[in-house]
Amino acid sequence: MTEKPIIIKTAKADNVGIVVNLNGLPKGTLLDDGTLLSENVPIGHKVALSDISKGDKIIRYSQIIGYANKQIRRGAWVQESMVLLPQPPDLDSIPLTDNPKPAPEPLEGYTFRGFRNPDGSAGTKNILGITSSVNCVSGFTGYIAGRIKKEFLHKYPNVDDVIPLNHTYGCGVAIDTPGAVIPIRTIKNIARNPNFGGKILVVGLGCEKLLPETLLPGSDQSKRGADGFVSKVMTMQDESYKGFHEMVAGLMKLAEEHLKELNKREREIIPASELIVGMQCGGSDAFSGITSNPVAGFASDLIVRTGGSVMFSEVTEVRDAVHLLVSRTVNSSVGQALIDEMRWYDEYLFKGEVDRSANPAPGNKAGGLSNIVEKALGSAVKSGTSQIVDVLAPGEKLRKKGLTFAATPASDFICGTLQLAAGMNVHVFMTGRGTPYGLSMVPVIKVGSNSLLSNRWFDLIDMDAGQVALGQKTIEEMGWELFHLILDVASGEKQVACDKLGLHNDLVLFNPGPVT
Amino acid sequence: MTEKPIIIKTAKADNVGIVVNLNGLPKGTLLDDGTLLSENVPIGHKVALSDISKGDKIIRYSQIIGYANKQIRRGAWVQESMVLLPQPPDLDSIPLTDNPKPAPEPLEGYTFRGFRNPDGSAGTKNILGITSSVNCVSGFTGYIAGRIKKEFLHKYPNVDDVIPLNHTYGCGVAIDTPGAVIPIRTIKNIARNPNFGGKILVVGLGCEKLLPETLLPGSDQSKRGADGFVSKVMTMQDESYKGFHEMVAGLMKLAEEHLKELNKREREIIPASELIVGMQCGGSDAFSGITSNPVAGFASDLIVRTGGSVMFSEVTEVRDAVHLLVSRTVNSSVGQALIDEMRWYDEYLFKGEVDRSANPAPGNKAGGLSNIVEKALGSAVKSGTSQIVDVLAPGEKLRKKGLTFAATPASDFICGTLQLAAGMNVHVFMTGRGTPYGLSMVPVIKVGSNSLLSNRWFDLIDMDAGQVALGQKTIEEMGWELFHLILDVASGEKQVACDKLGLHNDLVLFNPGPVT
Repeated sequence: MTEKPIIIKTAKADNVGIVVNLNGLPKGTLLDDGTLLSENVPIGHKVALSDISKGDKIIRYSQIIGYANKQIRRGAWVQESMVLLPQPPDLDSIPLTDNPKPAPEPLEGYTFRGFRNPDGSAGTKNILGITSSVNCVSGFTGYIAGRIKKEFLHKYPNVDDVIPLNHTYGCGVAIDTPGAVIPIRTIKNIARNPNFGGKILVVGLGCEKLLPETLLPGSDQSKRGADGFVSKVMTMQDESYKGFHEMVAGLMKLAEEHLKELNKREREIIPASELIVGMQCGGSDAFSGITSNPVAGFASDLIVRTGGSVMFSEVTEVRDAVHLLVSRTVNSSVGQALIDEMRWYDEYLFKGEVDRSANPAPGNKAGGLSNIVEKALGSAVKSGTSQIVDVLAPGEKLRKKGLTFAATPASDFICGTLQLAAGMNVHVFMTGRGTPYGLSMVPVIKVGSNSLLSNRWFDLIDMDAGQVALGQKTIEEMGWELFHLILDVASGEKQVACDKLGLHNDLVLFNPGPVT
Repeated sequence: MTEKPIIIKTAKADNVGIVVNLNGLPKGTLLDDGTLLSENVPIGHKVALSDISKGDKIIRYSQIIGYANKQIRRGAWVQESMVLLPQPPDLDSIPLTDNPKPAPEPLEGYTFRGFRNPDGSAGTKNILGITSSVNCVSGFTGYIAGRIKKEFLHKYPNVDDVIPLNHTYGCGVAIDTPGAVIPIRTIKNIARNPNFGGKILVVGLGCEKLLPETLLPGSDQSKRGADGFVSKVMTMQDESYKGFHEMVAGLMKLAEEHLKELNKREREIIPASELIVGMQCGGSDAFSGITSNPVAGFASDLIVRTGGSVMFSEVTEVRDAVHLLVSRTVNSSVGQALIDEMRWYDEYLFKGEVDRSANPAPGNKAGGLSNIVEKALGSAVKSGTSQIVDVLAPGEKLRKKGLTFAATPASDFICGTLQLAAGMNVHVFMTGRGTPYGLSMVPVIKVGSNSLLSNRWFDLIDMDAGQVALGQKTIEEMGWELFHLILDVASGEKQVACDKLGLHNDLVLFNPGPVT
């Protein structure tokens, strides 16, 4: 065991370091700073770099991630059970200020080949979307999507896919509860995602609580909105349909009209400023905060410098780092909006008789993350260093270019669904433990936080940020690589792993209200 | 317009009747009882059969469905806007008694051809189910089910289908919230549905909050439970899998082992007492309570007389008729359990700042149902007249033969999912407005409440109970027809409409807790 020990300390003030060696480090290892390991420490886990007395601060990212609940000697493995969870940042005492800052140095000349939309946005895929006002019709939309793909799609080679945007809302829910605004605007805004080209099919049942009109600019059977959005609506209970096969024929006809229009679109050169990148992580480990997330943060800054848009999300995973984020908001009203989203979620969890400690998951802990504070500090890093120009409530559509905090739960599927509603056209997903997560509506670039996973899941992970921990590449180098990969994927020139394999999961709405 | 007017009055005490004529009845129509219509009244809607003063009771099913908020003259159309919602039955003042009753006259000799299971239960289909501990793997299980069907299924002709039991739970949820018990036991019990033959594949990710072991009798890779339940578990993050194709190969191998076992099963003659029928309605209208639901209730009584099991559900749709149901419970502890489920749901809705008036849907109202009281009285009719022997909390497995109230939300998909978890092997679904609802795991028999719908949706509806309203058949005749149809469908001798068409929707869990 003469492997050179590699320990990552994220800031000078840290009194713990992360073991990077793939097999962990054995008892007796002497670190460069003179620390002698008093026990075996697994990969991704923390070692005490100085003596920490009972009640003392445990510091990582130069922030307090907890307090020692017993004496921890220098060289010891700092385990989850030794770390007391600190109080979360007090939302009432975070200072709000305007932070006028010069714009970052612009990054010019970067483009991708995308599909231009009537409202000026750009798609990275060209998809016929089939949405619905109620889950009752999801068997039908699934059936129809299969038929259209089989019978029509080969005739329209510029159209990439036909996707039913099934969900579990629309009836059997409390449509007047205060939280109902979230799923309703989410369904509405998903249909407006740039990858559906402003042309959508809407299937309604006819007796549901959520009226199809709610999802449209108007209530006509075919209606063009102010933003060029064109929807065609089919209602199954419409009395003109005699039986199932007439319903099928009716919807197939509408579908073919849309397919003809979508097929006229071709990829063209589009400035990188039309990118809307949704950043997310899932199945994080202790590496996430020092490899994949900083790499994503670096790429995020580059996209912002091109004039493009980046979203980061996951309320429960930034809640404990919110004091660091508020000071990065462009002005006090954006800062206040950020605090308001945190408060809303605190109350939502409180009603369910839980709190932020409901996160992290067991796998996070096995990966070395002691608690939600350590997870949050590592998670927020993916936002890079740009100013936060806006905050979206769950399901809202993006309003500004630059870096936006889009408030969502941390649940992978729900976060991705809400970012899709916000308008994302490229998804970047960092993982340390590994997940087959994939959306069919937008390309999902998977970034592994450690080489152990990235190598084992060689055909599921698109990029190995674990190289940073091993000193093989710098964060800057990999940040640029990710930036270029985003452009290539947006252009359809590189296919992401989950698209190659055909691994896609459904959307999941965020419905904080009751079902009935 | 010389069509004979048909008005249905459900009880002598009723002061309103339902218009049955397919085109409604015009102003000036003289009814048999001497009532003269003072305006046009649409099909399914109510006409006042006597003068009703402001504040007077409006009576249907001999129960108060509301109070007139203005003078309603004999012969007027009683519209939703004229009916004030009464207070719901006070849960604290419903008398609880033991109700020992002689067993109903047994109905002997009825059988179906089903698949016998190790625990004594019987399947009506022979399906390889693939469940999961977390939604992260749903893209993978969907992919695998497709591969197994394509590559293996033809080799195992006795196996009907391969179905991924995808759900949206397992991570990104507050797993310690009091409500978490519901989705967890639901997932666990779905895997034990008789149609999966006691052999299930479980796919886990590895880092999720809901540990795969939670779903199994034990934690071994292949474990036989006391009830003969055999599960095979595959975890995607298992370090022995190098890449996606090894994961696929690993799961395909386990799948084929199960397929070989399942393929040994053949249909055999099984007493009707092994039927577990889940009754549900969705998209109801004013006919539901006088045609399809009483027909279902009659069939329900017949099944109970064979010694079989029937469940009815939908808390918000029986809440206003609960005083009529408590008096039918076999003893005071079952009565108390019924009241407890109502109370739990009252509180659940209250936390979401809504109440029972969140139901009905606009389509119910357009179909003539004024409010939840009228809907509930018509809904409860599907339980027939048998004694209620047990009450299940959401997601629990059936414990007793006879008539059980399985507490579920009224949301069609969630109710069906919870009845599936309870063990149903035949689903009977009554609808007045029409829905393409269909499950792939169990046959779903669709019963139309009116002939207008049943004729228009001739290939989506299995049985037209609207014939009762038109006087073409009696409730008793159609009840027997439905009973025989249930046996034929359970035997695989008749295929239901949604199976013929391949119209199936996903399961939807009931998760009253927050996501994280």
